[in-house]
Amino acid sequence: MYTMGIDVGSTASKCIVLKDGQEIVGKSLVSVGAGTSGPARAIREVLENCNMKREDMGYVLATGYGRNSLEGIADQQMSELSCHARGAYFLFPKVRTVIDIGGQDVKILEIENGMMVNFAMNDKCAAGTGRFLDVMARVLEVKVEDLAPLGAQSTVEVGISSTCTVFAESEVISQLAKGTDKRDIINGIHRSVASRVVGLAHRIGVRDEVVMTGGVAQNYGVVNALQKELGHEIYTSPLTQYNGALGAALFAYQRYQKEQKA
Amino acid sequence: MYTMGIDVGSTASKCIVLKDGQEIVGKSLVSVGAGTSGPARAIREVLENCNMKREDMGYVLATGYGRNSLEGIADQQMSELSCHARGAYFLFPKVRTVIDIGGQDVKILEIENGMMVNFAMNDKCAAGTGRFLDVMARVLEVKVEDLAPLGAQSTVEVGISSTCTVFAESEVISQLAKGTDKRDIINGIHRSVASRVVGLAHRIGVRDEVVMTGGVAQNYGVVNALQKELGHEIYTSPLTQYNGALGAALFAYQRYQKEQKA
Ligand code: SF4
Repeated sequence: MYTMGIDVGSTASKCIVLKDGQEIVGKSLVSVGAGTSGPARAIREVLENCNMKREDMGYVLATGYGRNSLEGIADQQMSELSCHARGAYFLFPKVRTVIDIGGQDVKILEIENGMMVNFAMNDKCAAGTGRFLDVMARVLEVKVEDLAPLGAQSTVEVGISSTCTVFAESEVISQLAKGTDKRDIINGIHRSVASRVVGLAHRIGVRDEVVMTGGVAQNYGVVNALQKELGHEIYTSPLTQYNGALGAALFAYQRYQKEQKA
Repeated sequence: MYTMGIDVGSTASKCIVLKDGQEIVGKSLVSVGAGTSGPARAIREVLENCNMKREDMGYVLATGYGRNSLEGIADQQMSELSCHARGAYFLFPKVRTVIDIGGQDVKILEIENGMMVNFAMNDKCAAGTGRFLDVMARVLEVKVEDLAPLGAQSTVEVGISSTCTVFAESEVISQLAKGTDKRDIINGIHRSVASRVVGLAHRIGVRDEVVMTGGVAQNYGVVNALQKELGHEIYTSPLTQYNGALGAALFAYQRYQKEQKA
């Protein structure tokens, strides 16, 4: 029995196909999200990868910022908060705190036995989100995916004192004008993201194990800075990018079973 | 007897020369602020305008974000909050509320008999500040000083739902892509600034008369939007840009008198 989870984020669309609610048999990621062809392409890709059709799916559940665009395609929609909690619990059964940094928001979830019991969220301010890193990468004329390896080569500590994306961008511009090494600036940017996120995390408290999810979890410069600032070990994996979609596929399996019984 | 007030802001340097603490005999404004040649140029300009020298000034007082850069030039430094209160009281003796929108911050002052008794300030976030308008003008490819006349020609209401500068910029870009009239977008931007500032103003309450100062007070599109959203008449004048410098020159006069007595 197969179920599909689709996570339509602000900047990426992700799909997971799950067998019997246990085994990931296919995944896809398209780097455009809500309001684009991304969700449809992600669905097509994951089905091709598994060599299956929409009809082979027992249940399809959509989550994320743009989930409502999938009415008629998905059997149900569900909040990304629940799906992220569920996905992280599947990957890391001891998880108590999820730090999810997406393209346009930051969420901190407190988890108990795989259920979300509390959360803090910033979706009004670009500071500390993937967008912050996008803006900085553009000013520095480097690719976002090169930020982590470049920052790792930093030798001098450079402070970025503004948390606001706009003011921090000006600081980066004047650092560049002063001739500061890009790699040191990048390291400062990673610390800036970390301190912003830690501020949010402290609102609900941080408990071990801490799992980081979302696109920014792929940037190990941010993960390391967060780890230092938080004083907790942070678990992550390449699969955490699919965390919301995974949670959706798990909930899809649960729904399917319920419907079979009914 | 002449005194000088210098306001070293984040984006402009302003000077006022006052005769006997009563009459404005000279003013200057240079559109670059702290950390540039702006303050020195503004001082040179105002002295040239009045045909005077530094030695002719009985007392020189500096205020604003970059006031500490004028040690050795100014006789004293003073917080811009007090100077703004004092300047506004001179221009509008019935003032109870000052809304000051500068290049990088927003301040709301509650005034009683010319003294500041309470304030609310945002200097951490670019939303609602002059910087917000700069960013939008750049994306729209219009001059900041053309925003007000263009917005006044708007015929259709366009909402900018994000208050964050970064997210609002994306909204503007997608409105442009949809072919929305720039003048309608500009009007939406003015309302966005207004709603952000009103949020801050309500923290301390708004009392008549309301005076608006700072560079953004020259944008009557923002003033009108604020007036509507606030439900209070707003007083402003071309002199309000010099408000901080004016307050500094007034305090300089007071200091001078005190020193003469001592
Ligand atoms: S602090 Fe900066 S990034 Fe955050 S809402 Fe304000 S303008 Fe946006």
